[in-house]
Amino acid sequence: MTLPASFIPPERTLMGPGPSDVPPRVLNALGRSTLGHLDPLFIDLMDETKSLLQYAFKTENPLTMPISAPGSAGMEACFVNLVEPGDKVVVCINGVFGRRMVENVTRCGGRAVVVENQWGTQTDLNAVEDTLKANPDSKILAFVHAETSTGVRNDAASLCHLAQQFNCLTIVDAVTSLGGIEVDVDGWGIDAIYSGSQKCLSCVPGLSPISFSERAVSVIQNRSHPVQSWFLDMNLIVGYWGQGGKRAYHHTAPVNSVYALHESLLMLKEEGLENAWQRHQTGHEKLRDGLAALGLEMAVDTGYRLPQLNVVVIPDGVDDGEVRGQLLRDFNLEIGAGLGALAGKVWRIGLMGYACKDRNIDHCLASLSKVLQ
Amino acid sequence: MTLPASFIPPERTLMGPGPSDVPPRVLNALGRSTLGHLDPLFIDLMDETKSLLQYAFKTENPLTMPISAPGSAGMEACFVNLVEPGDKVVVCINGVFGRRMVENVTRCGGRAVVVENQWGTQTDLNAVEDTLKANPDSKILAFVHAETSTGVRNDAASLCHLAQQFNCLTIVDAVTSLGGIEVDVDGWGIDAIYSGSQKCLSCVPGLSPISFSERAVSVIQNRSHPVQSWFLDMNLIVGYWGQGGKRAYHHTAPVNSVYALHESLLMLKEEGLENAWQRHQTGHEKLRDGLAALGLEMAVDTGYRLPQLNVVVIPDGVDDGEVRGQLLRDFNLEIGAGLGALAGKVWRIGLMGYACKDRNIDHCLASLSKVLQ
Repeated sequence: MTLPASFIPPERTLMGPGPSDVPPRVLNALGRSTLGHLDPLFIDLMDETKSLLQYAFKTENPLTMPISAPGSAGMEACFVNLVEPGDKVVVCINGVFGRRMVENVTRCGGRAVVVENQWGTQTDLNAVEDTLKANPDSKILAFVHAETSTGVRNDAASLCHLAQQFNCLTIVDAVTSLGGIEVDVDGWGIDAIYSGSQKCLSCVPGLSPISFSERAVSVIQNRSHPVQSWFLDMNLIVGYWGQGGKRAYHHTAPVNSVYALHESLLMLKEEGLENAWQRHQTGHEKLRDGLAALGLEMAVDTGYRLPQLNVVVIPDGVDDGEVRGQLLRDFNLEIGAGLGALAGKVWRIGLMGYACKDRNIDHCLASLSKVLQ
Repeated sequence: MTLPASFIPPERTLMGPGPSDVPPRVLNALGRSTLGHLDPLFIDLMDETKSLLQYAFKTENPLTMPISAPGSAGMEACFVNLVEPGDKVVVCINGVFGRRMVENVTRCGGRAVVVENQWGTQTDLNAVEDTLKANPDSKILAFVHAETSTGVRNDAASLCHLAQQFNCLTIVDAVTSLGGIEVDVDGWGIDAIYSGSQKCLSCVPGLSPISFSERAVSVIQNRSHPVQSWFLDMNLIVGYWGQGGKRAYHHTAPVNSVYALHESLLMLKEEGLENAWQRHQTGHEKLRDGLAALGLEMAVDTGYRLPQLNVVVIPDGVDDGEVRGQLLRDFNLEIGAGLGALAGKVWRIGLMGYACKDRNIDHCLASLSKVLQ
């Protein structure tokens, strides 16, 4: 019997749609010795992590914490806790992740009313307003802030404002936005938001930071039906991640991943949120100019383009898979393929968190230039 | 503004109910540089990890993989995929985790029929047989193999045999058993099984290895209702963790945690399953003798006592919290408290995976002796 060997990954440069580069400091934190999940020192760390997440989300919501699973589970946590059978939810779709929200609504027994806009364009505010007007019994407006599949920023502030006018709760996907562009949970009045650890927060994949407003908490506490997921039932999780004091055992937190998230949030706070947003914008401009010099065109309008996820049109006659394969093999550089309707038509170049820096941008431009020549 | 500092955990000895000690080799693997989750090298690693899990579970089930979340999510994955509204499920309860199974059945819209035995005793086979006879329309028999809350081993082989006689599927909780005592998925004919990474597999917490038989897969593929969880829908996950070739994006796997699980499974295979079981048994006997010499009594009958989770009666007049607190503070040693009905009455001393070794047992006995004197 031959045993497989230990796995030693090469050192890639991760400039796809995520996971993005993880700083050595975060990897070091990840590999520290494991504590029991009810150890008083770990409980202190949970409290610090919550408070750092409040900083990142710009919120004072007490119910702010990482879900012990990836962003898709964070999405599900928001829907299973807020949607009850029969509830009407208006969902904005302009990419893959809006569609996934509809799946979530349906599986909770809710009724989804869809506002669909073309992939690569922004969600149309007038269409949302008309839909809310036509559906005055809607309970929730759900949308994706930064569509990872298309590189489009939806206008979160205005969408939240609309929801409030029509007395709807909001569920916001901030998987790719948090830490890369402004997210203002309290300022915009977001009721439920989820993100991912592995994008602009520069942590390893596996955790989903979430936050619920007091209004959302009260809705959850007053449900008529129990939450269909035991693992994601916030009524139970809050006893485990609750503020200070004695914790009620729920599940076993992924202790080492929380070390890593804490460290990455610390780095974000040291840099300062506004500085991080500015760094993403500056990096985007440098990349954009370099791509233009190579004759490559951005797919998304400047008015709503994400700086942290650059969607680039693949020129006619260029083989998508071949280019990405060569970048990976010869330059240890990962960029992303197009998803769904955009497969084969675009590349997605991520400048997320720690990956958004001169060294990466230079390497990406130089490597692309060699492969395309 | 004062920033919180990087978190440097002390080096504890983890002899509670899990997480248990993680070997440096696994922590090193965990901290290696992150790859993209669709990187061909990571996809190869996924395949190797699946095949190592098949070895650990003693199965050839193709649908064998880690769920990207802790054991509680593994439990939920089994129930949401196999239970449909109205389905009758016989659940054996003799501790905390059997009760959690009932929660899962109910939240799936199923009807739970409970076989309850006293905490600290084994599930009674005659009672299960009577219940199956009285409920011929039962679809599933669910039980916990190693009850982490009580230190009791249920007779998995006989329970599976009974289920087959009554044409029921089986759902088995192997969170604490896998790697510590015999688990024989194919030999016993288990249909759905879940475990946790952080017990006898000696990996960090956060992943839940699972396996489904071909019969279970066919039941899942022929459901009348969609699986209520999108994140845990095996019909979708199988496209992501499927054998070789092109993967359909579902969620982002916790890449670094998979590195760690792969390494820990490699260590298990190097040692050999049978040798690992024997090591747990030998360690248990040494601990048991040492505890007896200190005048401490085991709570569970030898006929069904788990070697990897030693439940010890707290002597009269001894303060539970004080002892555990002093062990943690003065000796960096974690042992577990009693859960539920057993809180304050017992300690749970884990000898799981890498934590089951002479050095730990000696340290535990010497420290307990000092604290109790």
